[in-house]
Amino acid sequence: MQWTEKYSKRMERVTPSAIMEILKVVTQSQFINFASGLPDAELFPLEELQKLCDEVFQEEGKIALQYSAAEGYPALRSFIADRLTRQGEKTSADNVLITHGSQQGLDLAARILLDPGDKIIIENPSYLAGLQIFDSYQAEYLPVSMDGEGMIVDQVEELLKTQAPKLIYTLPNFQNPTGITLSLNRREKLVALAEHYNVPILEDNAYGDLRYGGDSLPSLRAFKGGHVVISTGTFSKTIAPGIRVGWIAAEKELMDRIAQVKQITDLHTNTFWQRVVYRYCINGRLEPQIQRLCKAYKKKRDILLQCLERYLPREVSWTYPEGGMFLLLTLPDSMHAEDLLKVAMEEKKVAFVPGRTFFPRGDGHNTLRLNFVSPKPEEIEEGVQRLAEIIRSS
Amino acid sequence: MQWTEKYSKRMERVTPSAIMEILKVVTQSQFINFASGLPDAELFPLEELQKLCDEVFQEEGKIALQYSAAEGYPALRSFIADRLTRQGEKTSADNVLITHGSQQGLDLAARILLDPGDKIIIENPSYLAGLQIFDSYQAEYLPVSMDGEGMIVDQVEELLKTQAPKLIYTLPNFQNPTGITLSLNRREKLVALAEHYNVPILEDNAYGDLRYGGDSLPSLRAFKGGHVVISTGTFSKTIAPGIRVGWIAAEKELMDRIAQVKQITDLHTNTFWQRVVYRYCINGRLEPQIQRLCKAYKKKRDILLQCLERYLPREVSWTYPEGGMFLLLTLPDSMHAEDLLKVAMEEKKVAFVPGRTFFPRGDGHNTLRLNFVSPKPEEIEEGVQRLAEIIRSS
Repeated sequence: MQWTEKYSKRMERVTPSAIMEILKVVTQSQFINFASGLPDAELFPLEELQKLCDEVFQEEGKIALQYSAAEGYPALRSFIADRLTRQGEKTSADNVLITHGSQQGLDLAARILLDPGDKIIIENPSYLAGLQIFDSYQAEYLPVSMDGEGMIVDQVEELLKTQAPKLIYTLPNFQNPTGITLSLNRREKLVALAEHYNVPILEDNAYGDLRYGGDSLPSLRAFKGGHVVISTGTFSKTIAPGIRVGWIAAEKELMDRIAQVKQITDLHTNTFWQRVVYRYCINGRLEPQIQRLCKAYKKKRDILLQCLERYLPREVSWTYPEGGMFLLLTLPDSMHAEDLLKVAMEEKKVAFVPGRTFFPRGDGHNTLRLNFVSPKPEEIEEGVQRLAEIIRSS
Repeated sequence: MQWTEKYSKRMERVTPSAIMEILKVVTQSQFINFASGLPDAELFPLEELQKLCDEVFQEEGKIALQYSAAEGYPALRSFIADRLTRQGEKTSADNVLITHGSQQGLDLAARILLDPGDKIIIENPSYLAGLQIFDSYQAEYLPVSMDGEGMIVDQVEELLKTQAPKLIYTLPNFQNPTGITLSLNRREKLVALAEHYNVPILEDNAYGDLRYGGDSLPSLRAFKGGHVVISTGTFSKTIAPGIRVGWIAAEKELMDRIAQVKQITDLHTNTFWQRVVYRYCINGRLEPQIQRLCKAYKKKRDILLQCLERYLPREVSWTYPEGGMFLLLTLPDSMHAEDLLKVAMEEKKVAFVPGRTFFPRGDGHNTLRLNFVSPKPEEIEEGVQRLAEIIRSS
């Protein structure tokens, strides 16, 4: 069958992920891999999880393997609600639905809100797999520039006034791909603007727990006017990603609609792992695990920053991430990260993601994203040295 | 925020599931429950799965908890491909993608193929959560009547000629809600028609493994012309549903697109459970487990059939399911299953699903669906007696 003539219009902008294409090559041999979005598997709490899996089988095996509610396991929803409340977002279990990772939370929110042609304010650059979601719903982008304090919120007001956007999408903490954090003042102003102009915010907080320095900032949902905010979170970065457990939180009215679409999509999230994750959390293991991760990841971030400082030529600059997994490097304007990647992969066995894939309008040709939590400390140094050689000889 | 004014157009036809509303009441107290879609939790292979979970932690814990490919675990894809090939569908691992249950397979296929207003041929009645998917993609229905041999395929040709449908959706084995199986001749004819008119078939084979009598029939994908068929399957009915592991199988070209959308939707299926399911299958446990289920479910089906024969008035008829989990009862035309349900739930503590919810045009007012695998044998007899009393006094 000629499938190409059968695809829906929404498929026109669905394309292979540039990152996935890189990773297909990289995982085949001995690369130093700054390209992935993977957390460090050495830090997964394997023994604890195995023990809890056994407990779930022993104590509630039949329930844990059966169909369950689209909204998720009530006890886990309550735990997440209480934790968000402690962090400043007044939340009840009714405001939380459990998803197969925060990716699914973003997709559900977009599915419920976006019609073809709807305009959406995004950070420029932004999370690739988020952009791919919005592409598939045929949204139009209103990209807003970023500086060291995140999205330049003054530009947002003009867009809200003149462009009637349907949604604002932001990653306020340690943004992917830049690692930049939205400042306190801008958070407050962004939420106030969204409320004033009656435009929902989709707050992607996948990395919020991974802070290595500086003060924790309240999430957008915690501010006055936060009722316009839909937020997504995940256990992928704190417990493990392979279990696919995340959440979406918003006003109760919206949650009923989200539950209906969640049911259509895949009925409900893995019953078994929801119960394992709940036991992990209620046993008080989550916060110590986050501290353990932050300690290890901070060390790697600091090594990367030191190595960049030491080995890279002066005309290269980079962001300073207070947390998360990534930073963004900016090369001289005359250089193209895609050209660099070709040499890096073929001659130096080092991989990164050219920044352009994160810029919906194709700018950012001279930027590249580095993941600093996945490689080993000694690989980071070696990898930066190799990068420096390639940059100098380009 | 006034969320109602923010929803996308696709939400207009997304509504609460009638079944879910019934189940919310039923699970609260001592009901005899013919309403659910649940398999029998007493038959879950708990000990074996627990052992395999331990093995996965011991032997491949870090990999099993890490992000993984959108397409799924290659070894599991190969196992499924080989099993489908043995059943007559020539399939390689490239033709298989692992999903969070077959519900997700249906949703991915619809997302890739359906634009608003596209027409889709369906059995009348059909699987409710399938209809909810198509509703959310704003499809229009071309319902085709069924008899004891399934969808009346002669009616399909006329629709193919005159209506230019985009898709044909069918559950050929032990259909939900009727329990009816599409006959061999009609299968062959349906695939030939679809190929001739160049219209894809979405074959929902969630129940295919659960056959209690009669000859196994080849799946639609196994026939000449089967390249137009996209099929979905699941381990929900054979191993357990709470683990959310199913698959979608189709031509390679289409699979690349499905993988792109799978990634957008939730990145990939639970890595951990894909590996547990693989070990279960490769250890040779799947077929004995299916035999065990079939033996137990056949017994329950036979009890239900005997009780219906014994207790119900002559003017009530029902389908004869060769497998699966459901049958459909037809009351005299003057009776309404919804009225009956009210009495049944309030006065007799017995629940079923009124058939109308499965008919997209709202016919079937005098039909009702009974799940015979979930209640205990003694509950089946007691439940049918109560149903008989209500029917007689209506």
